[in-house]
Amino acid sequence: MTDQADTRDIAADVAFLLREGRDDEAGRKYWAEDLKSIEARRDWPVSVGPEAARAKGEWFMANHEVHDVKVEGPWVNGDQFTLRITYDLTPLETGVRTTFEEIALYTVRDGQIVEEKFFYDA
Amino acid sequence: MTDQADTRDIAADVAFLLREGRDDEAGRKYWAEDLKSIEARRDWPVSVGPEAARAKGEWFMANHEVHDVKVEGPWVNGDQFTLRITYDLTPLETGVRTTFEEIALYTVRDGQIVEEKFFYDA
Repeated sequence: MTDQADTRDIAADVAFLLREGRDDEAGRKYWAEDLKSIEARRDWPVSVGPEAARAKGEWFMANHEVHDVKVEGPWVNGDQFTLRITYDLTPLETGVRTTFEEIALYTVRDGQIVEEKFFYDA
Repeated sequence: MTDQADTRDIAADVAFLLREGRDDEAGRKYWAEDLKSIEARRDWPVSVGPEAARAKGEWFMANHEVHDVKVEGPWVNGDQFTLRITYDLTPLETGVRTTFEEIALYTVRDGQIVEEKFFYDA
């Protein structure tokens, strides 16, 4: 069982790295080998492991022009923490600039993120 | 397993009721008999069942003057949804008006809320 204090430290570091646009670094530093990355979209399977999660991130970046990202939080409870992430982006498919909001819920075990789950309008 | 569509309907109704200040009604409507209500504060036990959750809400209202509440969301994933709740309040203990933010994570089963978990700076 991960201590709430450890969770708080990891939460603060992840929020810092995402604010700096260093998502890759956050992944390398904290993703567990058995990570589950869970989207709200029904047509996305659960991604298992860092390689699948990284590929999903690369798909996102290849298909969206991201103008700005706002990261709020973290908010903590036990071995879990949450962030609110607001993207100002243009999907290449539509070409229409829009705002995309999500809540990200992370579960920590032994100093690593074992699950990340994204909540949004799906 | 609760369907994402059901979860979305319940999420929208809960968000509506909380925005209207009808927290009691949301509880009566959706809290399961075996509800677990989980605070981030270490000195709070997990509250089990609607009566314990209601007593916790009554303690909160008796010990805080709430000036305004902002409810954002819902954001959904599978059988869970999240809200961001921002309180403008004065704790009677300190008398100092402040902003208190939390992310609320709800788990739905068979049309009822079986778990609510609150994330904040604890």
